Order: sequence, then structure tokens, then C-alpha cells
Amino acid sequence: MLIQAIHHLPKNNYAFIVNDKEVEIRIQTGPEVKKVEIIYGDKYDWDSTVSQLDMTVLGRDELFTYWYCRLYCPAKRITYGFKVYGPDQVIWVKETGYTSEPIEGHRELFDFPWVHVSDALTISDWVRDAVFYQIFPDRFANGDTSNDPTNLTPWDSPPTPTSFYGGDLQGIIDKLDYLSELGINAIYLTPIFTAPSNHKYDTVDYKTIDPHFGDLSTLKKLVNACHNRGIKVILDAVFNHIGWYSPQFQDVLKHGNQSKFADWFNISDFPLRTHPNPNYECFGFVASMPKLNTTNPEVKEFLLDIAEYWIKEANIDGWRLDVANEIDHQFWRDFRRRVKAIKPDAYIVGEIMFFAGPWLQGDQFDGVMNYRLTEALIDYVAEGKIDSKEFTHQLNKVLFYYQRSAMLGNLNLLDSHDTPRFLTRCKGNKKLFKLAAMLMFSLPGAPCIYYGDEIGMEGGHDPDCRRGMIWNKAKQDGELLDWYRRLIAVRRNHPAFSRGDIEVLNLGNLAAWKRWWQGEEYLVLANPSLEEVKIDGNQCEGYYIDLLKGDKVKIDKYFLLQSQMGLILKKLETY
Amino acid sequence: MLIQAIHHLPKNNYAFIVNDKEVEIRIQTGPEVKKVEIIYGDKYDWDSTVSQLDMTVLGRDELFTYWYCRLYCPAKRITYGFKVYGPDQVIWVKETGYTSEPIEGHRELFDFPWVHVSDALTISDWVRDAVFYQIFPDRFANGDTSNDPTNLTPWDSPPTPTSFYGGDLQGIIDKLDYLSELGINAIYLTPIFTAPSNHKYDTVDYKTIDPHFGDLSTLKKLVNACHNRGIKVILDAVFNHIGWYSPQFQDVLKHGNQSKFADWFNISDFPLRTHPNPNYECFGFVASMPKLNTTNPEVKEFLLDIAEYWIKEANIDGWRLDVANEIDHQFWRDFRRRVKAIKPDAYIVGEIMFFAGPWLQGDQFDGVMNYRLTEALIDYVAEGKIDSKEFTHQLNKVLFYYQRSAMLGNLNLLDSHDTPRFLTRCKGNKKLFKLAAMLMFSLPGAPCIYYGDEIGMEGGHDPDCRRGMIWNKAKQDGELLDWYRRLIAVRRNHPAFSRGDIEVLNLGNLAAWKRWWQGEEYLVLANPSLEEVKIDGNQCEGYYIDLLKGDKVKIDKYFLLQSQMGLILKKLETY
Repeated sequence: MLIQAIHHLPKNNYAFIVNDKEVEIRIQTGPEVKKVEIIYGDKYDWDSTVSQLDMTVLGRDELFTYWYCRLYCPAKRITYGFKVYGPDQVIWVKETGYTSEPIEGHRELFDFPWVHVSDALTISDWVRDAVFYQIFPDRFANGDTSNDPTNLTPWDSPPTPTSFYGGDLQGIIDKLDYLSELGINAIYLTPIFTAPSNHKYDTVDYKTIDPHFGDLSTLKKLVNACHNRGIKVILDAVFNHIGWYSPQFQDVLKHGNQSKFADWFNISDFPLRTHPNPNYECFGFVASMPKLNTTNPEVKEFLLDIAEYWIKEANIDGWRLDVANEIDHQFWRDFRRRVKAIKPDAYIVGEIMFFAGPWLQGDQFDGVMNYRLTEALIDYVAEGKIDSKEFTHQLNKVLFYYQRSAMLGNLNLLDSHDTPRFLTRCKGNKKLFKLAAMLMFSLPGAPCIYYGDEIGMEGGHDPDCRRGMIWNKAKQDGELLDWYRRLIAVRRNHPAFSRGDIEVLNLGNLAAWKRWWQGEEYLVLANPSLEEVKIDGNQCEGYYIDLLKGDKVKIDKYFLLQSQMGLILKKLETY
Repeated sequence: MLIQAIHHLPKNNYAFIVNDKEVEIRIQTGPEVKKVEIIYGDKYDWDSTVSQLDMTVLGRDELFTYWYCRLYCPAKRITYGFKVYGPDQVIWVKETGYTSEPIEGHRELFDFPWVHVSDALTISDWVRDAVFYQIFPDRFANGDTSNDPTNLTPWDSPPTPTSFYGGDLQGIIDKLDYLSELGINAIYLTPIFTAPSNHKYDTVDYKTIDPHFGDLSTLKKLVNACHNRGIKVILDAVFNHIGWYSPQFQDVLKHGNQSKFADWFNISDFPLRTHPNPNYECFGFVASMPKLNTTNPEVKEFLLDIAEYWIKEANIDGWRLDVANEIDHQFWRDFRRRVKAIKPDAYIVGEIMFFAGPWLQGDQFDGVMNYRLTEALIDYVAEGKIDSKEFTHQLNKVLFYYQRSAMLGNLNLLDSHDTPRFLTRCKGNKKLFKLAAMLMFSLPGAPCIYYGDEIGMEGGHDPDCRRGMIWNKAKQDGELLDWYRRLIAVRRNHPAFSRGDIEVLNLGNLAAWKRWWQGEEYLVLANPSLEEVKIDGNQCEGYYIDLLKGDKVKIDKYFLLQSQMGLILKKLETY
């Protein structure tokens, strides 16, 4: 047995709270392990409480098998160890190490000392069930020409870094029928506060809506209209840095170390310089985006007040946090406390492009923009850089290294205003694009559609990925729009995809997983390769219905899946 | 190469802040790996910043080798990957997985996004350099017979669960010459607030000193006297539960759900029952120790006020936190914030008998009572249940799975009021006891001497381990006292032991490690077995001085270490 492949340590992704009397425990082993049992009990009453349970597989790949179970803890605490069955030996895994002798008593075992729900990461129902639609307001729809910037770029021309298109909040209100019909139930708006750029990540005034987008009353109208349709609205909190033209930074530029805002930033020495590198902390090395000193209590209060203000004033449903990982953890802990105090089901989702476990422990975010999944889908489906085995391994890591609720609270995306469009990455291959969307919609985590993806918009790196939305139906791709509507309907009609468990399968040269919820079972299969693949059907034989096409499907021991095709199947009891 | 043995994920024990421009990165590999390089740079300026560095070994055992390095981060952020040299192949380790192709660019690498010192775990100098002495006040010294309880048990009789001996704070003041001469520089007192029991873990009034121990002025006098001698004093915060006889719980017993304290506890239903099990949450199932509802803001404020009160009133230097892991994390985050606000160098140390990483991230504790090390020392030295290989593996886990500063902030102990005396576990074998003490004093983490260990006191399980301190010199073990004085002097005179780096060595059938600090290097060797052992001296050849005996020692390729013997050696440049 590969003893070194075995990994477990309490808390983080390995042991976490499910509800006030239940914890989930996970362990990683090598792929040769056939079975894992957990031995558990109450350490203060071990002999009369000790029990055992077989663990379930969360995912398998060439390197590891990932196991989990949920334990009922009547006294809110649980002590446990593992019995791991390898091909040639059985070992017991304790906190102190590995032994070939059976566990007796609870000494040296692992411990989950107390189930405090207040420490748990709990995700609101609406977030788990959400299908998001991301809007870059200047480019979505122009609903009020009276607030247009001067020198508008024509709607159909290619964007430049500085072009304005005139999109605004009224435009979004005008298009809510379109969004409702599409089926989405949540909107994420990139920044809308007053800022000189078209993207508005260079905030000048966090308490006013940019006049080119509307004003407080337009935002209220938008949020109300959305809520009336069952659509939630989250805004973008750009708290890592502020705009060059903000009164605070301008004051420092003018008064140097005499400015009352001098401590709002981290400045090495005065006067401020921007070349060759800025002598103050910035986002990246971008001099026009000075980083805010979020450990300064005055700055912190300024920003937390803004977080509260828009919830109270406009009744928004949460915040997407820009460059979230470059702000201190303590700031986010206070942010969560303040936001959840006034809106307990608010969604807090961080922009973190890397593994984000340390932010997803219950004290900071509900989820992150799941770029790790995005990149795996790009490499696997769009660009064919990795094979099914590697994709499965990466997917397992994403699923296993987050707590289950973080997994359900993540925002999954194929692309965004910061990346090329996925269809463009696929070089226009719609089969692959549809396949990737299908995979995203069938995985845990709220899918987020970047405006226009659903009608086949293309675009390379920023600013090309920020073209004006195509409203001319003749130019929209009806096949893709139909596909997206179906995917959204499947997800919204089958809670297994938003709330259910998952097992990633190893069926051959394809991506495959099971989902299940309240007795219903689903199978997802995808083959982005240029070859038809033969599936080892032993783990999934049976009768199914194809949820996207309505056909009935029988899976035998051997089943063929066509090239660049995928299926979302619901298991049938009888044919 | 054992790819499955490789483990790294940012933050926690794998990537943490050293100071405002430096992070420490760690990775685990299989033992066959000969070399690990880290490739690192600034993701916003990769090409002109990318560098590489060889990693250093923190420890080796049969299963794993543990590596670390410290990286300078001029722009407070660092992105990195690893190049791992196995016997037959070289692989690159990225956040997304393993590859045989060299790292190009920073995509898919690991990321430490920003060095916020406010998020770091920083340990006060005095804590790193502390040698603690734990006192159970009723049993240490009776300095004021006027406050004695009635029905005193004679000082030399064996303790029962309910016996009182009359020890008090004045007694400790009277014995400060003894403690100064011993060389300790910090005292940890088990609870001293008003409570009916002899151990006082059943608090009745957190704001008064138990009248049998003294009063506020006695505590102030003790703390002042200690501070004048350079001795710090920490108290025991029993915040998980309160005493049965506390006014709060008595009020609930009397008024049931009408009590204004009903929400101070977690009560299933009224009236309260104690049999067969209590119908309210307790410590363990002990009905007389009702668990406080620390998520109730009123309870939280009550307890945090107490934490502040004793620092402000009596100028104590920190808190030892009883049953710390059964209280919610959010409580401890607020506790840290409040305590550090009024005394930034206060020591906060939790009683956690298990792996405690989740409490040692910078937001909660400075360290924990390192029972994982205690148990390894018991099994290895006192009881011979595990061999050197297993001890080395367990030691490596303790060292590797905590951040370096947590390692330095932990309280290391051989025994306490909750365990049999270590000498008793050794069945009176002084050679083994001395060896274990030597190991404790040479490891990172503040050693804590349980009163009387240093003069050879024995005792089995509680209450036997709580005998009256032996003050009769004729009955004290002078050999042990001398040994402890020397160990304390070695530790206090050679900061390598309290502040330095460590490498756990694999030299054969013994425990061995190097320590170093500012150019000085030390070697620790220990052989608790009944056989003389031959040491593979290749990793440590040279000339040394034996710090405990003063002899010069030469270590050759082969060096013999006697049975049940240990050495603390300082490397000499010349002989």
C-alpha cells in the first residue's frame, strides 16, 4: 500500500461541519485502496459509543482516491480513526501515524472537538440554486441615451481600452425579459460606482452610481425589478485599490505626508513617484490603482460602511470582491460579520485565481470565482492540452480541497471580462463550447454566464472580450441560445446538480461523474477528443433519459460516446 | 519517484509570513528525493524577477522528507513552483499538478498573494525565550495559614479528589528565590479564581481570587515580585464551562427558562436534569461543569471583559486557555484582538491535546500545550512503545504541520496536573527522565516544568500527580535538580534552542537533531534504548563541546552513544 498517499488532518477540507449535529470527514489514499472504514465515537464515553462506517468515494484518478462520510455527533463532538484496506495489508490511520495494530480506545486518534455551527461555512439556498449572468454594464444595453458619455464608440465596433458604448442600468432593466426567458436567476454586475474608465475598477466615489450608468434610483429600480422576477443582484466591491482620481489619493498627491489620507496608502517615501516603479503599493505595478491600506482602522471603516450602505440603500444581495486575496484576512472576517449581520443570506464571493481554501473556512467568503475549474476546462475541452486523466485529477483536487459548502458556493465560469471568450478559445468550435458549458452546469458551484456567451459572442483578450452585446436576433446564434436555455432548465429542475453529492468516475478516456440527491441519480459523460471513446460501463450500467435531448439511453458494459459529445443522463428505475 | 508523497498547498503550515518582506515555504516529498529547488518570482513582473533557490531539509524520516526555504518578497507577493529531483526523474510541481515539462511563466503555479504582517502569527521574544514553571496553587506552598480552608490534609499525605493542602499565592511569593535560582522565567498558575474545588476549574466568580489563595492585592504583589525578577505570570482561563455553584447557573436551576441566564447555556429542555445524562451541554458529561454558550454575545462580552480585567488590574502576562478547542473559533479571534490590544506581547496558549493547526494561523493562539510531543516522548522514552524511527516521524509531523512561529510559541511539557508524572511513567528510571527533559529543552517551544518534577516528585493519575511540593531538601533529588538547572541554563544561554532553526536527522537507531542560530550550531543526540547505538556520523562529523558536562567530544564517521544517554553538543570551529 502507498502509505505516503494517505492524507488527513482535522478541519480545513478534511473535517468540517455539515449541520449542528453532523460533520463530514474526508481522507485521501492511493488508487490501490479498495475500502476505507472510519472508526468513531465520543471520547468521553468511548466504549459505549464506538461505531464504524464505510466511507464513500468522492473521486478517483490515477494518483489518488478521495473518500468521505458524514458522521452524526449527538454530543456535538467526535473522535475518529481510519481502517484502510490495501491489496496486501490493512492499516489503521491515527493522528500520530500509521499502525498495523487495530485501534483500541481513542488515544492518538483524530478529534473534531465541538460542532459550533457559528464556525461553519453555510451557503444560502439561493446561492446553491443560482444561475448567474455577468454583465459589464457599458457593453450590455443602452437604455438611456441621455446619460451617454461623449464620443461614444458605435455599438458594433471593436472595443479599445478606452472606448465607451453607452450601456447603463436602464438598459439592463429593459432586457430583463430576455434574461428571465433565458432562465437565469442572479446577476453579477462589474463595478458601477463613479469612476473615469469604462470598466470602473478605478473608483472615485464608492457612494454614487456612475452618472453614465444611472443613479441610486435607477439601481433601486433595477434591483426591485429583478427581485420581482426572482433574480438576485450582486455588485463588485473594488476594495483592494482606489482610483487615481479619488479625492483621497488626490489629496495625498497634493499634500504629501501632510495629507490626512497619507496613512490610507502604503507609501515608501514622499513625494510620490510613478516611475520607474511607483513608490507606493499598487495593484500590480499600476500607478493609477493605489492599493488601500486595509489594516488602517479608518480605511477599514470607510470600506465596511460602503459594503453595508448598498445593501441597506439598494437591497443588493451580495458582493463579488475584486482582487480579494491581496487584502488581509482580518478585513474579510470583519466584512463578513458586518454584511451577514444586516443580510444573513447575502452572497460573498471572492475573486481568487488560485487555490482559495484559506478564505473558505466559514469566516470569510461563501465561495470564490472558480478559475481553477475554468483553467482545467480550457486546457481539457478548448485547447486539448491535457487528457481526461489529468482533467479528472485536477477536477478531483478542486472538489476535494474545498469544503463541500464552499464547493456549492463557488462561482463557476468559462470566461469573464478578464479572459478571452471560451468560444474563441475553442477557435469557434461550437461542439466543444457546448460541451464545456454542459460540464460547468452539471458540477457543484453556481454557473456564471458571461453576457453574450449564450448567443455565440466571440472575443480575444481584454478589451476584445468586452464587445457590445449582440441584440440583433439574426446575428445571435440560436443553436447556442437553445443549448443554454436547456442547460439552465436542467440545472434548475434537477437539484442534484446544485445541491447533490458527486462522485468523479474513472471510466476510460473521458470525463464522467455521478450526481445524486434525494433518491435521484444522474450520470454526466463528456468526450472532447477527436476519437469516439469506449466507456467501461461497469460502474454505471442501466437505463437513463438524456435530459438535454429527451431520448432514452441504455448503458451496457461497453458504451460508445461520440467525439466532441457529452450527455447529461438521469437514471431510470425501469425502461 | 513517489509522486503521491509530495504535498504542498499555500498557507497553513506550507506557506506563511516570516516578516513584512519574507515568507517561508515548505513542501513534503518521499524520502528518496535528493534535492528540491523552488522557482519563484513576482507574477506581475515574472520574466525579470524569476529566480530559483535550493530548499533546506527540516526533517527526514522513513516516510517523508520535509523541506523549507525563506523567500524575500520585495513587492510583498510571490508566485512559485517546485523542481523535485528523484532518483530516476525530475518533475515540476505546480498548483494544478505534476509535470515532466519545465515551468515556463507563472500560470498554474502556487501563489502567496500578499504579505500582510497583521495576518501573521508573531511570537513575543519573551515567549520564545521562556522557561515555564507550572504551579497548582493548593499544593505548592502555604505562605499564609490565616486563609487556610478547614480540614486541611497534612502536606505529606496522598491527595484525594477533594483534599485541600492550604497552598496559596503568598506561598509562591515566599518561594520566588527558589524559582529564580532554578532559573525559570515564567510561571503558569492553574486557576485561582473563587471556586469550591481544590483545582478551581469550577469557577464561581471570575473576578475574585479564591479567598483560600489570597486576594487581588496578593496577586498584584506576586506579579510585581515576579516582574522584578524578570519572571512573567500567566493565568488559567476556564471559559468553556462555569461552576455549578456560579450565580448564573444557580439562577437557571432556580428559575428555569425564566432565568435571565437561560441563554448562557445550551439547554435541551426544562427543568434541568443531571441523570442519566445532563439535558444541557457540559464539559464531557460532567453535570457540575455546564458549558457556557460562548456564541451568545452577552456571555462573550462577560468573558472577554474578564480576560481584559486581570491584565489591567494585576498586569498578568497572558492566558492559558482551558479546553480551548471546544469553544468556537470566532470567540478566540475576538479574545486575541481584545487581549493584544491592551498587552501586545501577552501570551495566549490553548489547551489542545490534538493537532491544533486551525487555531495557530495568527488569528487565535500563539501556541498550544504541545501534548502531541508529550505523548511521543512518553511512548519513546518513558515506555519504549515506539522506536526511534517512529519517534522521528512523529516529531517531524509536530514540527512540520505547525508554522514555525507556532512551533516556537508552543508550550512543551512532559506532564501536568492532568497526567501521571513523567518520572512515574519511567517507573522511577532517572536516566530516562533526564533524557526526556533534555529532549524537551532542546526542541523549539517553551519548556514547562510541572512543579516538583525538578526534584524528582512522583505521582500517578490525578489526583496522585497533585501531591504537596517537597520542600525538605533531604527528600529532594539533588541530582535531578542539578540536571534541571543545567538544562535551563543551557537553554537560556544558547538562543539556538529557543529561536533557532532545526533539522531532524536520520542517523540510525536514535533521536537526533541539529539546531542553529546566528552562526552557532548544535547537535542533540538521545538513545533511550537498552543497547548502545552506533551513529552514522557522516552528517555531523566534527568537534563539539558537551554543554551539560563541559567535556569536549569528537564525532567521527562512527560514534557510539551509550544506552539511556543523551548529549547536547555545541559545534567547535577548532578543537
